[in-house]
Amino acid sequence: MILETPPIGLLLAASGETGKLLFTMLLVFGAAKVLYEVFEALRQPGIVGEILAGVLLGPGVLNLLQPTDFLNALAELGAMFLLFRVGLEVRSSDLLETGKTALLVAVLGVVIPFTMGFAISDLWHGSPVEALFLGAAMVATSVGITAQVLSSKGLLNHVSSKIILAAAVIDDVLGLILLAVVSSMAKGEVRLMDLLLTAGMAIGFTVAVVRWGSKTMARVVPRVQETLKGDNAEFKIAMVLLLGMGLLAIEAGVAAIIGAFLAGMALSNSVSHRVHDLTSGLSEFLVPFFLVGIGLNFNLKAFAEPDVLLMAGVVLVAAVISKLVGCGLGAWQLGRRNMFRVGAGMVPRGEVGMVVAQLGMSLGVVPDTVYAIVVSMSLLTTMVAPPLLNIAFRGESGD
Amino acid sequence: MILETPPIGLLLAASGETGKLLFTMLLVFGAAKVLYEVFEALRQPGIVGEILAGVLLGPGVLNLLQPTDFLNALAELGAMFLLFRVGLEVRSSDLLETGKTALLVAVLGVVIPFTMGFAISDLWHGSPVEALFLGAAMVATSVGITAQVLSSKGLLNHVSSKIILAAAVIDDVLGLILLAVVSSMAKGEVRLMDLLLTAGMAIGFTVAVVRWGSKTMARVVPRVQETLKGDNAEFKIAMVLLLGMGLLAIEAGVAAIIGAFLAGMALSNSVSHRVHDLTSGLSEFLVPFFLVGIGLNFNLKAFAEPDVLLMAGVVLVAAVISKLVGCGLGAWQLGRRNMFRVGAGMVPRGEVGMVVAQLGMSLGVVPDTVYAIVVSMSLLTTMVAPPLLNIAFRGESGD
Repeated sequence: MILETPPIGLLLAASGETGKLLFTMLLVFGAAKVLYEVFEALRQPGIVGEILAGVLLGPGVLNLLQPTDFLNALAELGAMFLLFRVGLEVRSSDLLETGKTALLVAVLGVVIPFTMGFAISDLWHGSPVEALFLGAAMVATSVGITAQVLSSKGLLNHVSSKIILAAAVIDDVLGLILLAVVSSMAKGEVRLMDLLLTAGMAIGFTVAVVRWGSKTMARVVPRVQETLKGDNAEFKIAMVLLLGMGLLAIEAGVAAIIGAFLAGMALSNSVSHRVHDLTSGLSEFLVPFFLVGIGLNFNLKAFAEPDVLLMAGVVLVAAVISKLVGCGLGAWQLGRRNMFRVGAGMVPRGEVGMVVAQLGMSLGVVPDTVYAIVVSMSLLTTMVAPPLLNIAFRGESGD
Repeated sequence: MILETPPIGLLLAASGETGKLLFTMLLVFGAAKVLYEVFEALRQPGIVGEILAGVLLGPGVLNLLQPTDFLNALAELGAMFLLFRVGLEVRSSDLLETGKTALLVAVLGVVIPFTMGFAISDLWHGSPVEALFLGAAMVATSVGITAQVLSSKGLLNHVSSKIILAAAVIDDVLGLILLAVVSSMAKGEVRLMDLLLTAGMAIGFTVAVVRWGSKTMARVVPRVQETLKGDNAEFKIAMVLLLGMGLLAIEAGVAAIIGAFLAGMALSNSVSHRVHDLTSGLSEFLVPFFLVGIGLNFNLKAFAEPDVLLMAGVVLVAAVISKLVGCGLGAWQLGRRNMFRVGAGMVPRGEVGMVVAQLGMSLGVVPDTVYAIVVSMSLLTTMVAPPLLNIAFRGESGD
């Protein structure tokens, strides 16, 4: 009856966008938090519950939500604020201290997964180019989930955590360079100058921020703050730096979340606790969209065929083991316990693996099935990580 | 040269959405904050600078940005977080105390602007239905800007502020009912039952939340908090309530920001300071998108014709005066100074006037020119309010 009235109907149409928006956000946020609580009550990591909320709401199960541009944008912002907040708690000097070990972890964590991916595809009679792409897709670490687990346990200052974070940054740069090489080979034209430029930009950007970011900010922030009139001037500077560094990172070829992490780290010495609090509000609100978004993109139907399911299983196991062993070996100096921790933290591939597979598809060298397998590997490694980290860090607690 | 390399080009394409997103957000946030500082340095209200940033970036001047779905969504969220945070600082008992005065302010602030709008359109040879719509468009107060000014000055506990907030809530309900009546008349069929239902829902929702919201939350929040395991449980409850009440408000026919305000107010007695801090982060980050969004929708080109410009000027002056006088008169008991304050706080029409005009257009009874005039009136009353409030509250300071 009410729906027939012209005024309300039209008013709803006029504010219909807002209504849909709020409904979607309430669904995502509410479902994430409910499943978080359920999982925590069952002594399972709450984060897995939040990802599962996405799988349940998504096209594969209840079909209440599709991944939209708006949800993807919120998810991306969520991941950036997460890494920014993590960056705020890490000093670049700490990261530089772990330098050698982190480099070894990153390099072995690139070589071993790449080799295993290449070998599996080759044994499965994939073309050499296809094998290169599967190898490359297994390389890049997506540190978002690990950061969330470590941060929620208050373990960001643990030695393993620092190595994981530093190695993930190096890994992202190495992954970019590897991807550039692989793509050039796929197109049959390796242009050395361009490859060097790609590598140079990515390395230059990262090294510059890690080396000089903190010092520069320690000088710039107080000065800018003096001249600004409004409240929360520090926070405004921080937000501009976060968005700007995310953009610069993309321009330099690495992931926006790496830029966000570096922005946070550059500010870690120079901003007050107020900035931490204000940023926490944003990440608390937005991170569920990141986690649900992971689940939302997971399509159960792709694995109806037993053949695909089998290869997906093999790739998944190889993806987990190759990082556990590769990255773990890199940290052998720190003892067996920390080797396991570092390895577990580097397992998640997240969206980076998917970008690689997408690139291969758009070049026409990666078939649909391999794409679906890579997507599932990326998601499942992300979902496997929190329980692995829980086991690895059992008994440890921060703060 | 770099753009020619396949890997980087494709990678950018793959992450192109994120890049665009960050660029837009950096542009909006950065420009808003720069112009905020410039205006504050010139001893003008910074908020006007932020709105002007939108006008400058928008299609009318630099044409760097168009209003997109994503920006509109952020703007809407910004307005909601703003009103939610304001609600957190207001007790419903305070609002109920101002009851009679606020009701008088709201009613006179509806009757006088409506009469003036109707008379102007009639003198301008508009049809009776057109006159009804212009009248209705001049009625609804959009309290976002006023709330921002009062909150930034720490004046939310001032007696005038409480009356403005209470009157704005009542005004929104009255405006909805008036709009329902006017639309029914425009369609030539006044269905009393439907009108009563519309009115009943809007009034029922608002009264119920104001009366029982705080008490209910004071009981519910501690209990829910006890059972929740994660950090920041209060904040999560607050976010669910914010989104849910915004949605309910839309369903009841009033604006989402009114729902957000009521959600904040319902929680004002029961949540800790931590929730304030976390919410501040979200509003600090999102409010610039609300302010820039106002400017972005302002189209200078509509006023190329002197005829339209003249009527726009007349409507604007009438819009400002009718609220200043109407709402001011309602607060006569509080002395001349507070009459001016209350009147000035009620001047902004914001998006509500635009919704009315849009409705009239979609019913085919409001011509394009009148629509443009209403849009400019809505925006300019919003831009006029901060300096007016600055004058009205000169010498007062909160906290």
